[in-house]
Amino acid sequence: MNAPIRMHSDTAALPSAAPAATAFADRHVGPGPGDVDVMVEAVGAKSLDALLDDVIPASIRDQRPLSLGPALSETAALARLREIAAQNQVFVSLIGQGYHGTVLPPVIQRNVLENPAWYTAYTPYQPEIAQGRLEALMNFQTMVTDLTGLDVANASLLDEATAAAEAMTLARRAAISKANAFFVDRAVHPQTLAVLKTRAEPLGLSLVVGDPEHDLDPAAVFGVLVQYPDTYGAVRDWRGLSARVHGAGALLVFAADPLALALLVPPGELGADIAIGSTQRFGVPMGYGGPHAAYMAVRDSLKRTMPGRLVGLSVDSRGAPAYRLALQTREQHIRREKATSNICTAQVLLAVIAGLYAVYHGPEGLTAIARRVHRHAAVLAAGLRRLGLAVPDTAVFDTVTVAVGDRQGEVLARARAARINLRPLAPGAFAPEAAIGIALDETTEEATVEAVWRAFGGTLRYGEIAATVDDHLPPRLARSSRFLTHPVFHRYRCETEMLRYLRRLADRDLALDRAMIPLGSCTMKLNATAEMIPITWPEFANLHPFAPAEQAKGYRVLLDELARMLVEITGYDAVSLQPNSGAQGEYAGLLAIRGYHAARGEPHRTVCLIPSSAHGTNPASAAMAGMKVVVVGCDRDGNIDLDDLTAKATAHADTLACAMITYPSTHGVFEEHIRDICDVVHAHGGQVYLDGANLNAQVALARPGAYGADVSHINLHKTFCIPHGGGGPGMGPIGVKAHLAPFLPGHPALDGGTAPAGPVSAAPYGSASILPISYAYILMMGDAGLRRATAVAILSANYIARRLAPHFPVLYKNHNGRVAHECIVDPRALKDSTGVTVDDIAKRLIDYGFHAPTVSFPVAGTLMIEPTESESKRELDRFVDAMIAIRHEIAAVEAGRLTIEQSPLRHAPHTVHDLADDAWDRAYSRAEAVFPEGVSRTDKYFAPVGRVDNVHGDRNLVCSCPPVESYAE
Amino acid sequence: MNAPIRMHSDTAALPSAAPAATAFADRHVGPGPGDVDVMVEAVGAKSLDALLDDVIPASIRDQRPLSLGPALSETAALARLREIAAQNQVFVSLIGQGYHGTVLPPVIQRNVLENPAWYTAYTPYQPEIAQGRLEALMNFQTMVTDLTGLDVANASLLDEATAAAEAMTLARRAAISKANAFFVDRAVHPQTLAVLKTRAEPLGLSLVVGDPEHDLDPAAVFGVLVQYPDTYGAVRDWRGLSARVHGAGALLVFAADPLALALLVPPGELGADIAIGSTQRFGVPMGYGGPHAAYMAVRDSLKRTMPGRLVGLSVDSRGAPAYRLALQTREQHIRREKATSNICTAQVLLAVIAGLYAVYHGPEGLTAIARRVHRHAAVLAAGLRRLGLAVPDTAVFDTVTVAVGDRQGEVLARARAARINLRPLAPGAFAPEAAIGIALDETTEEATVEAVWRAFGGTLRYGEIAATVDDHLPPRLARSSRFLTHPVFHRYRCETEMLRYLRRLADRDLALDRAMIPLGSCTMKLNATAEMIPITWPEFANLHPFAPAEQAKGYRVLLDELARMLVEITGYDAVSLQPNSGAQGEYAGLLAIRGYHAARGEPHRTVCLIPSSAHGTNPASAAMAGMKVVVVGCDRDGNIDLDDLTAKATAHADTLACAMITYPSTHGVFEEHIRDICDVVHAHGGQVYLDGANLNAQVALARPGAYGADVSHINLHKTFCIPHGGGGPGMGPIGVKAHLAPFLPGHPALDGGTAPAGPVSAAPYGSASILPISYAYILMMGDAGLRRATAVAILSANYIARRLAPHFPVLYKNHNGRVAHECIVDPRALKDSTGVTVDDIAKRLIDYGFHAPTVSFPVAGTLMIEPTESESKRELDRFVDAMIAIRHEIAAVEAGRLTIEQSPLRHAPHTVHDLADDAWDRAYSRAEAVFPEGVSRTDKYFAPVGRVDNVHGDRNLVCSCPPVESYAE
Repeated sequence: MNAPIRMHSDTAALPSAAPAATAFADRHVGPGPGDVDVMVEAVGAKSLDALLDDVIPASIRDQRPLSLGPALSETAALARLREIAAQNQVFVSLIGQGYHGTVLPPVIQRNVLENPAWYTAYTPYQPEIAQGRLEALMNFQTMVTDLTGLDVANASLLDEATAAAEAMTLARRAAISKANAFFVDRAVHPQTLAVLKTRAEPLGLSLVVGDPEHDLDPAAVFGVLVQYPDTYGAVRDWRGLSARVHGAGALLVFAADPLALALLVPPGELGADIAIGSTQRFGVPMGYGGPHAAYMAVRDSLKRTMPGRLVGLSVDSRGAPAYRLALQTREQHIRREKATSNICTAQVLLAVIAGLYAVYHGPEGLTAIARRVHRHAAVLAAGLRRLGLAVPDTAVFDTVTVAVGDRQGEVLARARAARINLRPLAPGAFAPEAAIGIALDETTEEATVEAVWRAFGGTLRYGEIAATVDDHLPPRLARSSRFLTHPVFHRYRCETEMLRYLRRLADRDLALDRAMIPLGSCTMKLNATAEMIPITWPEFANLHPFAPAEQAKGYRVLLDELARMLVEITGYDAVSLQPNSGAQGEYAGLLAIRGYHAARGEPHRTVCLIPSSAHGTNPASAAMAGMKVVVVGCDRDGNIDLDDLTAKATAHADTLACAMITYPSTHGVFEEHIRDICDVVHAHGGQVYLDGANLNAQVALARPGAYGADVSHINLHKTFCIPHGGGGPGMGPIGVKAHLAPFLPGHPALDGGTAPAGPVSAAPYGSASILPISYAYILMMGDAGLRRATAVAILSANYIARRLAPHFPVLYKNHNGRVAHECIVDPRALKDSTGVTVDDIAKRLIDYGFHAPTVSFPVAGTLMIEPTESESKRELDRFVDAMIAIRHEIAAVEAGRLTIEQSPLRHAPHTVHDLADDAWDRAYSRAEAVFPEGVSRTDKYFAPVGRVDNVHGDRNLVCSCPPVESYAE
Repeated sequence: MNAPIRMHSDTAALPSAAPAATAFADRHVGPGPGDVDVMVEAVGAKSLDALLDDVIPASIRDQRPLSLGPALSETAALARLREIAAQNQVFVSLIGQGYHGTVLPPVIQRNVLENPAWYTAYTPYQPEIAQGRLEALMNFQTMVTDLTGLDVANASLLDEATAAAEAMTLARRAAISKANAFFVDRAVHPQTLAVLKTRAEPLGLSLVVGDPEHDLDPAAVFGVLVQYPDTYGAVRDWRGLSARVHGAGALLVFAADPLALALLVPPGELGADIAIGSTQRFGVPMGYGGPHAAYMAVRDSLKRTMPGRLVGLSVDSRGAPAYRLALQTREQHIRREKATSNICTAQVLLAVIAGLYAVYHGPEGLTAIARRVHRHAAVLAAGLRRLGLAVPDTAVFDTVTVAVGDRQGEVLARARAARINLRPLAPGAFAPEAAIGIALDETTEEATVEAVWRAFGGTLRYGEIAATVDDHLPPRLARSSRFLTHPVFHRYRCETEMLRYLRRLADRDLALDRAMIPLGSCTMKLNATAEMIPITWPEFANLHPFAPAEQAKGYRVLLDELARMLVEITGYDAVSLQPNSGAQGEYAGLLAIRGYHAARGEPHRTVCLIPSSAHGTNPASAAMAGMKVVVVGCDRDGNIDLDDLTAKATAHADTLACAMITYPSTHGVFEEHIRDICDVVHAHGGQVYLDGANLNAQVALARPGAYGADVSHINLHKTFCIPHGGGGPGMGPIGVKAHLAPFLPGHPALDGGTAPAGPVSAAPYGSASILPISYAYILMMGDAGLRRATAVAILSANYIARRLAPHFPVLYKNHNGRVAHECIVDPRALKDSTGVTVDDIAKRLIDYGFHAPTVSFPVAGTLMIEPTESESKRELDRFVDAMIAIRHEIAAVEAGRLTIEQSPLRHAPHTVHDLADDAWDRAYSRAEAVFPEGVSRTDKYFAPVGRVDNVHGDRNLVCSCPPVESYAE
């Protein structure tokens, strides 16, 4: 407790103007004015502005201030958001199409979705401090494997449509068949089909759309996708199909509704190789399209080629079970251009919620909900028949579709008058004439069904119809296999137990609500409470993505204003808010470039220049966009080798599509030659894709659209405060110059499929319901606050680099000796002299109460640190002091006082289990183990497990909840 | 992990009716149907109903089911509450009178007010598991002493008006003067004066109301209360008054606005002995009257006679500093009829918020807010003068009052049209003619001031007026002394740091979100999330208690419906929702009896019969109500001695006012003779006050109003789910039979002071904003759910009693061998044989992960356990198993294997600091210390400090944040 005490000044002389209350920017930015002065001096700059001059090349420096306006207070920003929210109208949406009303249990809403311990967590790469969310994800995976009847599930994908696309490419990789076509059930959700089209074309895959029973030639395809139940509600028995598909060496993919699977024979028992779908209706609000967690489950033989993250079970240093992310070596940042998918972000927070929904309801609860929904659908259908409508005699789960012809407009209007949305279907979609779809859900009441009947012109009583009705599911499709048999799905039935389970899981983890997470390239900055509050308001949470536009006027305002803000900040001319992750943004940006070249008659422009320092997602996205990656070298300082770039651009001048540049570079430096780089690429007919991951180092100081780039994705998490959520949700809008604007992603729900570019995400505006976070942040920061955030982020990185430099080499500075917004420290020489690994340092930091920096990216064996603007000087110093203390521990090994195997570095993290052993034969004391210098004795965080064994975990892959016995202590 | 697995039944045969989703009652009640069967068998009952027959006397058993209706789902209840909320209109209220607009920082709202770790905590009697909230309360106390310039502050009182009443009685106790009158500034808030009148009369104190400068005869009074600034806004220099008051041996009390004290010379420097006030405007929403924390600060010499709880600093078993409640021996449950106040509940949760508001803003932030408010007021006054209004030339802080005569109605109406409420003042209050008061606050904008001017008929520009205006505070009243100099008020300026501070504090504590809190008589049941959600909605949170009725239509609906529900449940005829704690309810109930007797011409009926087993609050309340307590004996089984009661009632037949009976008794038994007891009291002219603390054992099974009681208070915390909040807020409505209804508390804001009884609380409906909690609970439980809750609460108590009986004697069962809803276990014989104290058991339970049961109440040396209906069988078993394991540890001492001083019992709780010592010379292993049988190794809670030394703490009373050096490790 040696805080500098800032005293209030003498109050006797009152000022003559009313001073403002504390501005939000002063709450968001960690270091106060006094701290900034000290830090500026520490880095040897004359002023903060002088430091910025040292860091940011004059050639790109934007002298024009932002014109977004002054900051609003938290109160005023929330009032503005309430005003916007009030312009949305929450109807009962029975539109279906993969999005359904659901009840998020309040105990989960408040203690997970609204709890910073969950939403500020990082991706669980450091398993020792992530056991809580890893268990929650394991629950999710088990839920998926149990419901689908398949062997292995991943820890979520972005949405059902992209999951279908991932299934398609997985099928292509795994199928024996050499065919080049993928067969798609004509009754899949339209947005799924649209995304498949987008994704298939650049890969040279062809799609065949039809009825699998009549139109399929198995020999002509490598895979088949069916929807179960289909988009019109029909539940079909695909047993026969499976044999035909497998006989031809192709794979069978099910897009399946997990709630229906509580009642239906699961895909795995019908012969599916892969199942995908959305878990939205497991407690996750529709949110005008997202975010929600999609799932993918596969047969065991496919598990090592499945995209996405996979939680597995391993053991810790004491042999106790411990969760971890399995097969991390598959991650794109390591595989680079060999990647088969650019998936990075998952939907962890939403997968956690869906898994907990299953935990809270258990198999009997899910079954009861499913039966209730199904019962309502059966009664609805009977009533419609009573009213003379020709409801087909198909088995359905929750959705009834009926041809109505000319009456469509009138029925839809009457339903809307009762505040109910039904799904309009054009002639030819479901039937030759126009039709209407009605999808019921967990929230449907008997009165809802009666209101639907009234919309169709009849007044019927639910009870009377129900008395006459049997249910619709044919016995041979009724599920008999058990699911959710693990105890975790049976223990938490009362709210008190559930609450405590959520608390226990949260307490195992280290998130931003406990300590700095100094992850380079991941920008773990404050997710302010005021930004988070609106997202659970019903007016944002409960809109169906395909609700009529007049019900979403508030969203329209929000989308337009946010897009305008992003245009102003980036210097581009247009923005698409559709991509729901940074990687999706990259992909969409590359597709825009592809579309542009094609429209100019140069479809052969497919070479994509990527520097060797790039994040692995870049080449993966390029490959997905049908581009050929050509790697450009970097110099010793991490800068792109301009000569090599020029040589490669020249060599490929005829086929050059673009270059992908991360700026500031992945090494954390503003390259001086960025304008030259852009010029070279343009001169050879290429476009410049500027990876916007590091936009947070430029906001209000430089605008990519102004210094030569043509397109960027904007990572709303890194720059605009969308919380990391433990690994999602993400949001990756893209900004483009005007010439690329026509090639931004379209969406059939907006343009009927007429846009030049198809959709990259299932929903027109991606994860729309989290956009209020970024909007609120920009409103509350204002022009000056945004500039200050960027400046302090740069200052803090340079401060850390300066303080650490005497202890660890700092790599990659610019010619002024400055880093940008992050820095890389290099302990590799210490490894040579002592054996200490970068992992030892990372794990030892846990003992000091910190999450590790980014390990071995972008340079193997090093640590990348990004402090962000939100960390106080006190916290920065605490971190630096911990790193220095660790350096001293390494010095003890260097001095030969103990070996690395004997040192606390190698045994870290230390747990209470270590302390509780009576025997202690370590070369250091217990107190040195757990209370090293500078660690609070009152508020120490203990990891619940010791160091996790990665090799054991990958060799013994257990990816769903292990049997009870394995928990025995 | 040996949970009984409840499998889903075979789903092939679908039912023909849509089954309901899980009902809320099944989430609220811990044991599921299968568990209940096992527990019923374990207690040796034939069925749950048969057990109830064993427990509840047939004579009082209500066979008529409740008629509140079926349960609503959480979704439906929240929809109903949204509907109600929408009927409230949130205007800008510039009414003042002690209630002001304020900004609750979102980070505090979400992480304290909406966080179960804070709101479900119990009163911090067990300091080892309460260091977080104790620190937060210490911050509050320090804030109060610093702002008031006095020496010692308590940890909050109920509201400003009752705090004034407590100050009056404290002054009476402490003054040298023998006078019997208390002088009250005529410019105190009207509700304060009204409560003082209520409280003074039964004590035989007289009030003199007038202008202290002109009307005071110091020799005639024992104390003087002034308001600073006063209710009309004036800031007066009371330096002269102090000398006159002290010269006469009387005490000077300030009712002071803490925000004003950031700018004004504090009461302590003006000669105040006591300062009281409300901290509402420190971030706590107005909430239509409450809850908010009042404060009291005193000179050092008065600290041991000050009412309320006091947090002090002591040391733990290792000598480390540790917070605790100081002077607990003053608590009413120990002092009984010698008590000088019946204060039990404080407003802990709200005091925590107010203290954290000061932590977050710090002295410079509070000063800036105060200056801004003051500046607005100065400009407002100048503008009104410009408009020709006769604004007095008094110094003001935030409130301007101006005579308007006939224009009052027109101005108020015009303001209301602009959605602004001003304060109407009747002729004679402020001036001979009608006047209007305007109180500005933290949320006031320049536009608000301009709107007020327009209401007065003028269009002025803020900037123009401001340019001409100096501020109003005279230099000799401008504060020069520093405040909030402790580092805690300087460290947490950015949201990230504040968030982590809140997390650290929460993590130190054990609340209901981690483990069962088996407190007898305190009913720590689930506070469900759905119940908590509405209280932070603006429509409930932001209403001024004196806002016009037409803006509070939603509250009207809520109050009426809740009162109707309580009437139905209790069998009374009328309910008052004013008392804002159980003790206040008792007091109000006794006043109703007093009023009733007086109205019948029997004011001499003042004897109150109270059984020896009663909670200490009962006699304290009786004394405050001017009654004479006569104690009635109890038999060995804890039942009231009917003969003794009859004898005492007969002896005092002429003066008998009432008897106070707790039912089921404080010993946890339904006395068989309750009807006889009522009859005896009635036969001798008395009334029956039935303490409703244990109503939770009767809901839906017996109704006090139907079996003979005349009045009860209803503890909404214990029975209707208002969270404990760490020791408040409380809410204690009273139910009465029709003949007492005229004597329910009135309020000048409702009846202009014409009601037979005055108010007992500052606000007409007490802590109105938390009533949605109880309302939602009743809605969601419905008739059947409420009955099931009572039944399972009784079952669980009997289950625990039955399982513990082989290990510890269980006291006080009825003739069927049953307890009611709680049970008392008696380790006193073990103390004799081994030296083990009840404290050893309580502290050792912390090692097992539990909060202790109630210690030494109602029987010294015993433990009272109340499981409530919300705990799962698994948790009940975990607790019982821990108690049995502890019994085995005691057995080891009995067997002579180690002494009690050597045993883990005496050294409990064990901390990580114990483990981190290299030396370990205990008679048991480290693992036995911290991981005894049954304790989770993954999710163990560690107390942050060892056993706290109470004696040291009381001898070395430190009641504000200690200097920094004392924190040195």
